[in-house]
Amino acid sequence: MVGEDRRMASLGLAGPEVYSRRLRALPQPDDDAMGDARRYFDLPTPFAMKRGGHLHAARLAYETWGELSPARDNAILIFTGLSPSAHAASNAEDPAPGWWEDMLGPGKYIDTTRWFVICVNTLGSCKGSTGAASIDPATGEPYRLSFPELTLEDAANAANALVHGLGITQLACLLGNSMGGMTALAYLALHPDSARSHVSISTAPQAQPFAIAIRSLQREAIRLDPQWNQGHYSDEHYPEAGMSIARKLGVITYRSAMEWVGRFARIRLESDQRDEEPFAAEFQIESYLIGHARRFVRQFDPNSYLYLSRASDWFDIGEYGEGNVANALARIHLQRALVIGVETDILFPLSQQQEIAEGLRTGGAHVDFVALDSPQGHDAFLVDIARFGAAIAQFLARL
Amino acid sequence: MVGEDRRMASLGLAGPEVYSRRLRALPQPDDDAMGDARRYFDLPTPFAMKRGGHLHAARLAYETWGELSPARDNAILIFTGLSPSAHAASNAEDPAPGWWEDMLGPGKYIDTTRWFVICVNTLGSCKGSTGAASIDPATGEPYRLSFPELTLEDAANAANALVHGLGITQLACLLGNSMGGMTALAYLALHPDSARSHVSISTAPQAQPFAIAIRSLQREAIRLDPQWNQGHYSDEHYPEAGMSIARKLGVITYRSAMEWVGRFARIRLESDQRDEEPFAAEFQIESYLIGHARRFVRQFDPNSYLYLSRASDWFDIGEYGEGNVANALARIHLQRALVIGVETDILFPLSQQQEIAEGLRTGGAHVDFVALDSPQGHDAFLVDIARFGAAIAQFLARL
Repeated sequence: MVGEDRRMASLGLAGPEVYSRRLRALPQPDDDAMGDARRYFDLPTPFAMKRGGHLHAARLAYETWGELSPARDNAILIFTGLSPSAHAASNAEDPAPGWWEDMLGPGKYIDTTRWFVICVNTLGSCKGSTGAASIDPATGEPYRLSFPELTLEDAANAANALVHGLGITQLACLLGNSMGGMTALAYLALHPDSARSHVSISTAPQAQPFAIAIRSLQREAIRLDPQWNQGHYSDEHYPEAGMSIARKLGVITYRSAMEWVGRFARIRLESDQRDEEPFAAEFQIESYLIGHARRFVRQFDPNSYLYLSRASDWFDIGEYGEGNVANALARIHLQRALVIGVETDILFPLSQQQEIAEGLRTGGAHVDFVALDSPQGHDAFLVDIARFGAAIAQFLARL
Repeated sequence: MVGEDRRMASLGLAGPEVYSRRLRALPQPDDDAMGDARRYFDLPTPFAMKRGGHLHAARLAYETWGELSPARDNAILIFTGLSPSAHAASNAEDPAPGWWEDMLGPGKYIDTTRWFVICVNTLGSCKGSTGAASIDPATGEPYRLSFPELTLEDAANAANALVHGLGITQLACLLGNSMGGMTALAYLALHPDSARSHVSISTAPQAQPFAIAIRSLQREAIRLDPQWNQGHYSDEHYPEAGMSIARKLGVITYRSAMEWVGRFARIRLESDQRDEEPFAAEFQIESYLIGHARRFVRQFDPNSYLYLSRASDWFDIGEYGEGNVANALARIHLQRALVIGVETDILFPLSQQQEIAEGLRTGGAHVDFVALDSPQGHDAFLVDIARFGAAIAQFLARL
């Protein structure tokens, strides 16, 4: 047995063929990738959603690295930001670099020779998990806007079902960054004693108005694109303009002004790189944004984007503390926690990381709070791997 | 003689009827206002533009407050941000409150019993000055995108012609905020000894990539709106969606996250305030942005917006110092300058205000640098009048 087969056997799970009976999501661009390390977990049916409604025959896509220990006590679950897939790093089945390639793997900061790492594609996303682009088994048609209202609590509950399905009763560590950090807090609030430790990265205990404003405007750009068509777009009529604006606005708020001064300054495009459109891009910073948008548009389902974006706005851990964030965080019981934030992050400001650290400390955890001065803003956890990795490795070494 | 007539006579200028012969701009919504204190200055014809081309029979709209002294040495010229008109404050002809109502007037921080204040509508704007919405006398049709490429240097040169037209050889003070602060720096660089003092507010010596990115995205939202139609929109087919996104993005970057936490937190709209659209606004912060967009859309010409926005991106005082900002600023000779910035301004960061202060100081000016901790971000100069006014009044008192 090699690769996936061996790993599946060690987990006592059936092979992928079991899942081939399941209804597949709408074909996604990454389904055509050469390798595919995703596995699929069938959620209990019906799967109740927080704000009402149920999912039937829904599933989660996930990937794993390393081996679950006989005592099943070495599992780390990773919740991602809004757009990444479960492919956090390369593995035998899919050698393509993952979104956290340098963080995760044998001998890396999160050392998969010691830890069994699971990364889940968020419920409601479009990278293999059930979402608005998936087929509704009741109609045989894609859900689109008939997908039930999605919350990060639903995403947490779905992942908790997966963890139990893998035979794990308590995670060694639950890790989340950005939207995934909010999902992780929901997981901890809803499932007491589900994790011994927690790594919280550049996230928020509740969505603040600046972040809500940005996300609301991203959604508006998509909704106002005539091609969105109330969710009934197709490959031929895809809301490319709206998705492009949404992505560019994301990138602007994910990075920092300081980084860009050093990186782009006022450097202009070569004349042969410019197009003839009136008011077209002239500066490198504009072409950088265009590049980001091109790599995102058509790689992400617009309706899924709307659902996940709104779920982020709705999130408020305070709901689990009679409306008080500090109370809610203090009710989460962990042995240890690491909370990392970045001074240049305008979307998830350092003050919110401090709030999480203080709340978890009140709850009895030994909390390490790390404030980094990485210039890359919110995205620093994807870029400044040396500093984030060192903090995470040091934390994991003490567990 | 009362009101305008008396003031015009004291300036040795002809009355408004002289200007009625001029071609009027396209009717703008504010042309219907009850009162109108605007006067019009005919620019020299042809008026040469920095990047090529000429304007013919172009004009500037402006308003004034107070009386020009017999020595003509008490004039303050104000350059505005991108969107305001010349109506900075109420006056006899137009009692409607202006955009700087509490700053400017008899006995106010800028005391018009002492100072003769001129506020100019930027060349290229749509509030009375010639811009893309104006009639091109060569064709009898609106310029639209045939308007020549506009720079802030053109706006500065046009205002300089107005100042000379009013019989003023040297301003007591040149004041500019936001885009107007950049225009003021262009004015000082292009017209040596044109002002004895300068007040620079929340502006930039050159556009930095974060600000370029934001403005580029605002322009993209307008350009991608099918109703923009390559500049050939009409009242019936107006790019409302694009202008709305552009304005909301503006407001998001003009204010600060900190202010909004205190002001909006996570307060939701009453259910009867919500509309039924999927993903419609639920939070007060979203309805605040909607309100701002509604008050702006259709009050501003989209093509003018594109021209002024791009002019801001192009601005770089370094052009007047062999590519070096500090050199260029040091070549500006002033007796005194006041440079004010706000710590929470993400669009025109405090570091850029410091750069201006240091450069002008190297040039020999006595410079007061004031860093305010107003929570309102870039817009603080429009809101935190008490603190900005005190600094400005103190500065003017010493002249």
